[in-house]
Formats: sequence, C-alpha cells, structure tokens
Amino acid sequence: MLPRVTTVADLSTPALVVDTTALARNLDAMSAALPGARLRPHVKAHKCTALAREQARRGHAHFTSATPREIVGMARAGLGDDLLLANECVDPVRLRALADCPGRVTIAVDSDATVDTAAANGIRAVLVDVNVFLPRCGCPPEDAPRLAERARAAGLDVRGVMGYEGHAVLIPDRVERAAKTAQAMERLAGVAEEVGGDIVSAGGTGTYDLNTAATEIQAGSYALMDGDYGKLGLPFTRALAITATVVHVNNRWSVADCGLKALGMDHGNPTIDDTEVLFCSDEHLTFTPHRAAVPHGTARVGDRILVWPAHIDPTVAYHDRMYVADSPGVGAHVVETWPIDLRGWDV
Amino acid sequence: MLPRVTTVADLSTPALVVDTTALARNLDAMSAALPGARLRPHVKAHKCTALAREQARRGHAHFTSATPREIVGMARAGLGDDLLLANECVDPVRLRALADCPGRVTIAVDSDATVDTAAANGIRAVLVDVNVFLPRCGCPPEDAPRLAERARAAGLDVRGVMGYEGHAVLIPDRVERAAKTAQAMERLAGVAEEVGGDIVSAGGTGTYDLNTAATEIQAGSYALMDGDYGKLGLPFTRALAITATVVHVNNRWSVADCGLKALGMDHGNPTIDDTEVLFCSDEHLTFTPHRAAVPHGTARVGDRILVWPAHIDPTVAYHDRMYVADSPGVGAHVVETWPIDLRGWDV
Repeated sequence: MLPRVTTVADLSTPALVVDTTALARNLDAMSAALPGARLRPHVKAHKCTALAREQARRGHAHFTSATPREIVGMARAGLGDDLLLANECVDPVRLRALADCPGRVTIAVDSDATVDTAAANGIRAVLVDVNVFLPRCGCPPEDAPRLAERARAAGLDVRGVMGYEGHAVLIPDRVERAAKTAQAMERLAGVAEEVGGDIVSAGGTGTYDLNTAATEIQAGSYALMDGDYGKLGLPFTRALAITATVVHVNNRWSVADCGLKALGMDHGNPTIDDTEVLFCSDEHLTFTPHRAAVPHGTARVGDRILVWPAHIDPTVAYHDRMYVADSPGVGAHVVETWPIDLRGWDV
Repeated sequence: MLPRVTTVADLSTPALVVDTTALARNLDAMSAALPGARLRPHVKAHKCTALAREQARRGHAHFTSATPREIVGMARAGLGDDLLLANECVDPVRLRALADCPGRVTIAVDSDATVDTAAANGIRAVLVDVNVFLPRCGCPPEDAPRLAERARAAGLDVRGVMGYEGHAVLIPDRVERAAKTAQAMERLAGVAEEVGGDIVSAGGTGTYDLNTAATEIQAGSYALMDGDYGKLGLPFTRALAITATVVHVNNRWSVADCGLKALGMDHGNPTIDDTEVLFCSDEHLTFTPHRAAVPHGTARVGDRILVWPAHIDPTVAYHDRMYVADSPGVGAHVVETWPIDLRGWDV
C-alpha cells in the first residue's frame, strides 16, 4: 500500500512508526543467532503479515500465533507453511477455520477437552503443552504422555511438546534468567521423549540464547522491541515508536495526542526521550517541558515527538497500520504502510 | 446488524456484552437528572453511534467527542446537531474534515496556535478551554478573554468556555469531590462572562450532580460504567462485561481467553465475580478457581465467564463491536450487534 504522505511529520497522529533500519538489524541479528527453523517467530507481537514476510525472507518459514485469527490471516497471506497456535482453543467455529487453512496448522492441547474438541473439529496436528512453572496453560508433566496417547487415539499427529517459560523471559539478571529457563526446560525435556514427536517448542525474546533445550524458539518481541525488553541488554534495539503531535505547551508541562487508546499500559507509562512522562489520559499524554526533545530547542504547539511504548504487543493491537520509515526521527521518509491485519479475533 | 448467534454463550470470545437493562437504567437515570441539553454525552466512553442513538432518543441532541474521528462518525450517523470536540487539534486535514461535517461542530481552543489553525481551516465555532487545575490542556484563566478576542477577530463564533475537572471526577469521598469541583468551577466561572457566549461546558460522570456551575455536563462513563466509577456510589451500575471462555482449569487456577489486547489496563486488572484475578497476559487471564462463578458449581474447560473491565474507555477501543443482551449473565439472549464505529483516528 502506498502511503499518502512522505515524511513522519506529515502523518496524522497518533501513528505507529517503524524504523526500518532498526527492524532489519533486529531481524538479521536474530536470524544469525537462530537460523531457519530454529526460530518460530511469534506474530502476536506485531500482528502484521508484511512484517512476517520480512521474517520469512530471512529464512523462517514456521510461525507462532496466539489466536486463530492470526493463523488464518497468515495462511491467507501465503505464510502458512507451518503455523503453530501456541494456545488452547475450544471454539468449534474457530477450530474448523484452522482446519480449513491451506498449509500446515498445529495447535497446543493441555487437557482432555482441548484434545477432544480439536479432534472433533478437523484439526490434524498438536503439540502437548506442558506447564513449566508459569501459572497459565499447560498440563502437569506427568499427564503429558497420557494426553499424547489420547490425541493419537483420536487420530491426531502429536508433533511434540511445548512449554513457555514466561515467568523467566523478563528477569533482568541474566544468570537468574538462565537458571529459571534451565529449570523450566528440564521439566519439559523430562517428558518430551515419552510424548514423542520431534518438536520441543519454547522460549521468548528474553531467553532466545539461553534456552538451548528447545528445538525452536517462539520469540516475537525482538523485531520491534519495547521498554521492558530494552532493559535486558539484548542485541536488539527499539524499532517502533508512536509519533504524536504536541497540542498544548506551558512552562510546567506539555501535552501530546497519544493516550490510553494508543498505548498498551500494563507495563506502565511510555517514555519520551529527554523528558519525563507524567500521566496518560484517553487521548492525551502529559509530560514535562520538552525543550530537549525537539530540534528547534523550544517547545511549540504542533511539534512532533516520538513516544516509546512500554509494551509493544497490546500497543500494536490498538492500531490499524504501521508506517515504515527509512530512518529514526520525525524527519524520516515514510517508505511503506503495513496494515496490522492480524488484529482482532474474527476468523 | 443482525447477530449470527442467539445467546451470549454462543459468542466467539473475547466479546463485549452490554446488558441492555442496566444500560437503559443508567441512561434513564442520567436523563432524569440532567435532561436535554443539560447533558452533552461524551461518546469517547463507548465509541458507538448505536449507543449514542439511545442517548439521543432520551432527548440529548448535543454530544461531546475526544477525536475528530468521533465527530465525523457522529455527523455521518445523523447525530450531528451540535457536536463538541472537547480537545485541541492542529491537524489541518482533520480540521477541514470537521469543517465539512453536516451539522454544527464546535472545537476547544486554548492557545494562539489552536485558534489560528482552526480559523485557517474552516472551523466556525469554538469554546475557550480553560485549565481548571487538571495538568493537561486549557489556557490560564487570565488568558481566556484575550484568546476569545483573537478568535472573534479571526471570524470564529466563541460560544463560551469549557474546563474539565478530571482530577476530581474519581475522588472516592463525595465531600472532597464536591470541594475540588467547586474550586475548579469557580476558576471557570470567573472568566466565563468576560469570554462571552452562553456555554459553560464541564463535568464528568463522577461530578454530574456536584457540578452545578456548568450549563452542560460532558459525562460519558455513566452509560456503561466500570470498576473505578463503580466505587463512587453513583446511581449507575455496570452494564458492560467481556464474555470469555475458560481454556484451562486445574486445582490452583483457571485461565480464560481475555487478555491485554481485550482490556484497558491503566486502572489495573479486571475483576471476575466470586474469584480473584491473578494476572493478565496478551490473550489470557489467570484467576483463582472459579467454582462459584459458574452455574454448575465445578470449573470446566469451555465454561463461559464474565470479566468486568477496570476502565471501560480503553477497553472498548480494542473491540470492533459490542453485543447487546436482553439480561445479565452468559445465558442471556443477544438481541443486537452494535459496531464500535468511532474507534481509531481516521477521518
């Protein structure tokens, strides 16, 4: 899709802006570390088939999704070689939509109900999702072999196991992060053989190089990065900002048009370089005077600024598109517009 | 739009569900307290022209918006009798879209730049937005008469003043809330006469009956309510839940498919009746065993539950539609589907 505007400063705001140089650097760094099928990029972080295509161009043909919508959208975009729904689903309508996808779809199961509903609705392949200490989905390890047997008896191809060490991925201390990852993967590896299949799927951006037990890593955030992952000293840099317009200036604070409906807030406030964010309202961000943040040195109504989200995934999910810019900063040229075509839940 | 399903339990999840009885009660209670033009309902809370039409049916023909998109959408839906953009805007494209709307559009101005840009792009009417102690937009009171004069000199109709006591609306103690509101409105009233015009626009759901200085109240949350407003003892009850499906159960926690991409999180976790929410992930909600929350008394995969958002406005902005149910609970019949047609920022 051709953009209607040519520089970031021409965009109506708030608008997501991808720095294509930083993105390419992140994608290249990850592909060098985890080439080909060693990485199963998670599309939930960006919800964008155009970005997934950039990952595919670097040799990753297998993808991870969190929703049936993401799977169906990826398959329709021709990126359906090997799609994993790393999530439990008992919705017959959506399972049938997955079963009807061109290409190969595998889903996670962790209970009798998820196995039986998958089999009853045309799903052909599963991974047994094992709880590896994150209090979320995943069966107890001791139940995994039985579930695998039940799945095979129902005609499902059991391709292996998965387990997400989500409690470890954001631990700032690398040694502690590694220890928690090793503990989680020991639990997963302990049942992998008995379950059968050749896949051990796990990991995330924070453990991409620490998780050596998994056959494939489900990292997604590395592509665009965000505030929390930025604190871990990983070889990936922030590549997604929101450009906003300053709509109010006084000598104590400034206000920009980027608020709660443009920002995932579960990790707290976003940041703006060289200023302090005070608080967010529905459509506003109040921050300390931003003298240093604008090129002309004096804050003015109409200034464009860049806002860095604390958490990318729920930020992207508010927006309909991201603009790809050829360099960082508000003066950059917009070279492409990428629809965030995997947002929502419709299949 | 006719729904494809007939009960809440048939909906694919997560899905917004409006209890039409609670909604009607809230709308009726507010209309009784603030009839006709005494209320200028704020559409930012629901972003839904079908819901706005319910407000219009109760005699409110003037509406408040936070974005140009909301204004344009309301005007297109035939609800453009008197629309206020209670926000500053310096985007020429969007200002021209507002100027081209059928019906009457008034926008807030609080600086030379906002006045001049409005006048240069065809806007015909403004309110002078005065800061009433919330650190956000609004000019200093002493600057309001000068801005009004500048606006009139530029050919703009100055219809009055506005000022939002957003720092007061959620104060739990009613006496303190009243005191902060009175202090804010004293500041606004102090310049209203000198600015001229006959509108003093202010207030919100938390101060709808305390703010007696304003000629019109900009309340929006009262229609659907949410966790924080629910603590104030107002005569409005929660009318919007998210129905979710339980996808994992064990004896220590359960997991439902309603996560960070379905929930505004700036006010914290949502709630589920009779259980404790532990944490949210992108597409999951982990909570304590939900025995009491399901009719059959035992938690099962596939159970439908209702999740109550802590903050309605940024929750609604994630969704594409809300389903209107004829009663509370997951067994209710879905009688209508309302598109959330004012979401996003495109004009």
